[in-house]
Amino acid sequence: MPKLRIRIEFDGHRSLGPGKIQLLEAVAEYGSISAAARSMEMSYRHAWEMLDDVNQCFREPVIETETGGRAGGGARVTRIGHDLIERYRAMQGKAASAVEEDLRALGRASSKP
Amino acid sequence: MPKLRIRIEFDGHRSLGPGKIQLLEAVAEYGSISAAARSMEMSYRHAWEMLDDVNQCFREPVIETETGGRAGGGARVTRIGHDLIERYRAMQGKAASAVEEDLRALGRASSKP
Repeated sequence: MPKLRIRIEFDGHRSLGPGKIQLLEAVAEYGSISAAARSMEMSYRHAWEMLDDVNQCFREPVIETETGGRAGGGARVTRIGHDLIERYRAMQGKAASAVEEDLRALGRASSKP
Repeated sequence: MPKLRIRIEFDGHRSLGPGKIQLLEAVAEYGSISAAARSMEMSYRHAWEMLDDVNQCFREPVIETETGGRAGGGARVTRIGHDLIERYRAMQGKAASAVEEDLRALGRASSKP
């Protein structure tokens, strides 16, 4: 059966889809933007820009960077960021359930059922 | 309030989102791939590749090209293609309804409510 992916469009320019959410989850897992970027095979710069874009979407930050300390800095997903990840995953599930019959029908019509 | 956009992933490679559906609608409106491409400010080649990709998703064609005739050929969205457009739009509505409360909450938290 085909899968449903969702994207949230905040205005004509900013949007939030599976890529940014996956990156946020990787930052939460590794505690570092560079390690998260490596895990997704993207450049640090690209990852930083994606995360900055997510931060710009909201009034409060979804990610905070820490400078200095023994580990030489790191990144932390805020409570707001964790809430966002959880909400996105829940939305993904609700949306997919709402169109399950359609996905099944598209699967039957597809060239690779 | 932010908007929800949906994408249908058929396998690791092929997917169907708002861009291809909009292009199919433009072909249905103009009866021509080149006119549809112009209306969306994309190259004929890009439009053709996108439509070919949609055709490859399904066992039956969603679009058919006509060669010759006084108009020098054209393109027609098949019944299957029209069904696909209609189903996608319906899915978009069902999915957005299922997450309406979440979209509202994201709107309240966004930097540009």
